[in-house]
Amino acid sequence: MTSTLAERVLAGDQRAVARAISLIEDDDPAGIDLIRAVFAHTGRAFLIGVTGPPGAGKSTLVDRMLAETRRAGITAGVIAVDPTSPFTGGAVLGDRLRMQSHAADEGVFIRSMATRGQLGGLARATADAAVVLDASGRDIVVIETVGVGQDEVEIVRTADVSVLTLVPGTGDDVQALKAGIMEIADVFVVNKADREGADRLVSSVEANLSLHAYDAGDWRPPVIKTVATTGDGVPAVMDAIARFRDHARANQGTRRRSRAESRLRGIVAERLVAHLEQHRLAPGELEAIVNRVASREIDPYTAADKLVERMFRG
Amino acid sequence: MTSTLAERVLAGDQRAVARAISLIEDDDPAGIDLIRAVFAHTGRAFLIGVTGPPGAGKSTLVDRMLAETRRAGITAGVIAVDPTSPFTGGAVLGDRLRMQSHAADEGVFIRSMATRGQLGGLARATADAAVVLDASGRDIVVIETVGVGQDEVEIVRTADVSVLTLVPGTGDDVQALKAGIMEIADVFVVNKADREGADRLVSSVEANLSLHAYDAGDWRPPVIKTVATTGDGVPAVMDAIARFRDHARANQGTRRRSRAESRLRGIVAERLVAHLEQHRLAPGELEAIVNRVASREIDPYTAADKLVERMFRG
Repeated sequence: MTSTLAERVLAGDQRAVARAISLIEDDDPAGIDLIRAVFAHTGRAFLIGVTGPPGAGKSTLVDRMLAETRRAGITAGVIAVDPTSPFTGGAVLGDRLRMQSHAADEGVFIRSMATRGQLGGLARATADAAVVLDASGRDIVVIETVGVGQDEVEIVRTADVSVLTLVPGTGDDVQALKAGIMEIADVFVVNKADREGADRLVSSVEANLSLHAYDAGDWRPPVIKTVATTGDGVPAVMDAIARFRDHARANQGTRRRSRAESRLRGIVAERLVAHLEQHRLAPGELEAIVNRVASREIDPYTAADKLVERMFRG
Repeated sequence: MTSTLAERVLAGDQRAVARAISLIEDDDPAGIDLIRAVFAHTGRAFLIGVTGPPGAGKSTLVDRMLAETRRAGITAGVIAVDPTSPFTGGAVLGDRLRMQSHAADEGVFIRSMATRGQLGGLARATADAAVVLDASGRDIVVIETVGVGQDEVEIVRTADVSVLTLVPGTGDDVQALKAGIMEIADVFVVNKADREGADRLVSSVEANLSLHAYDAGDWRPPVIKTVATTGDGVPAVMDAIARFRDHARANQGTRRRSRAESRLRGIVAERLVAHLEQHRLAPGELEAIVNRVASREIDPYTAADKLVERMFRG
């Protein structure tokens, strides 16, 4: 059945793609089997990561970007990553509804993803969902995520190009740049550029960029002003992405290799801990040592040493 | 030498505390030795996590909270977590300067932390820094972090109480609540409450809370309006924290146990992967398999299986 699902995904069947992503989201072993089956047929799609703080207008921007690509006959998939909240019972789809303008268009596949998993689980699920869309023949895959933290950095590392969307007028502009994600942005977008403070924000980003020494031939991230609601500046964003793609072609191997490495390390770590827990420790043994750490009888590093030792004993 | 450092930390020597946190930040093995040495003497400090999106005024709020605690004669430590940016060469301290009002006060120890580590590294380093401040005799430790993503969730899980700071007028209020972090907030603060939209934001948070079924005796997070720049509402925040502390006393064991468990799992995962790499694989072997994944010769799950098998062979 999974092989049939894989075949249907490879044939571009949208319902099969939706089903496959659900398996991945649910952490179903069949999702992993599917990735194994289709992986050799992937690597063709260009992955575009779009991130930024809440309220930066990312969904509207992505909507406009899709309109541009569709005009050029390019097929697209979108993965909109939402952290799960128990208050809402899943992904909050609010502004994603705007993208419904493409819902009737077979050339655009849009999917919200949430996860209830461990740290790192969301990045892995997102990477797997991108593999599925790639396998289904999409020319580009947009990964849209809210926020500017470490997990977004991990998710954006899944992409071939990273677009960081900022917005003027959230009080302190420098705060928006604090987030470590600056280092992996290939293109900066200052959206809602008709608002007061847009030029100040552009200057602030440029000032930050100017602290970095770019060698000749290095890519210096451009800073582009947009008003996504009207579409102003969106073609310039697409141009910047295309220029980055040409520029990065030489380094794409390195980027994909480091992506493969961090993915592999994550999966190996998960499996080793699971093996330890299921095959080396007695039931309740982990719990007992956790209790000793919680009561300060033993420190976490010494406890970890003891657990790691168990991996190598009978 | 490390034992001397541990003794000095336990004696409350501020320079020793600063040195110890630097060791942790640099991922120096001496930092781990120090944690081992002082761990049994910790667990007394009350840890307050303060998070929220950029521009929410967290630093000003923390500054005011410190003023309240100092008035009550309570000693405090602050860990301000900043992701590292290569553009700035470390933590961006901008608004942290405001806290300099306490710089001359021996009762308040303030430290910015950054990390250049792996996923999860920042949460571990923050937890270790909190252990150091706890060991040094601080009554409360405030952990302030920017953002609303998975890593902030991990960091905030380090704390005994979590304060989520929101701010009106960042466009779409619901966006601010999208972040999964709502589920771990024990106290909501709507800061800059003199701004337009404050009441709407309070209602929006309350509406979200009302979707959740609270049983009798459950803690229902209060939503408190503040204007941190003037200090308005800050005593109410401190009251809410004190009430939560009383309320949670019964469950504090559970919380500390789940904290101990996630820390322990993280350290064990790191060590197992390091062992595999250093003792089971030949030099270049990981790289070779990463290259095969990057070139789509092998999928990451099959590659992970192969690597995990190596753990159990000669």
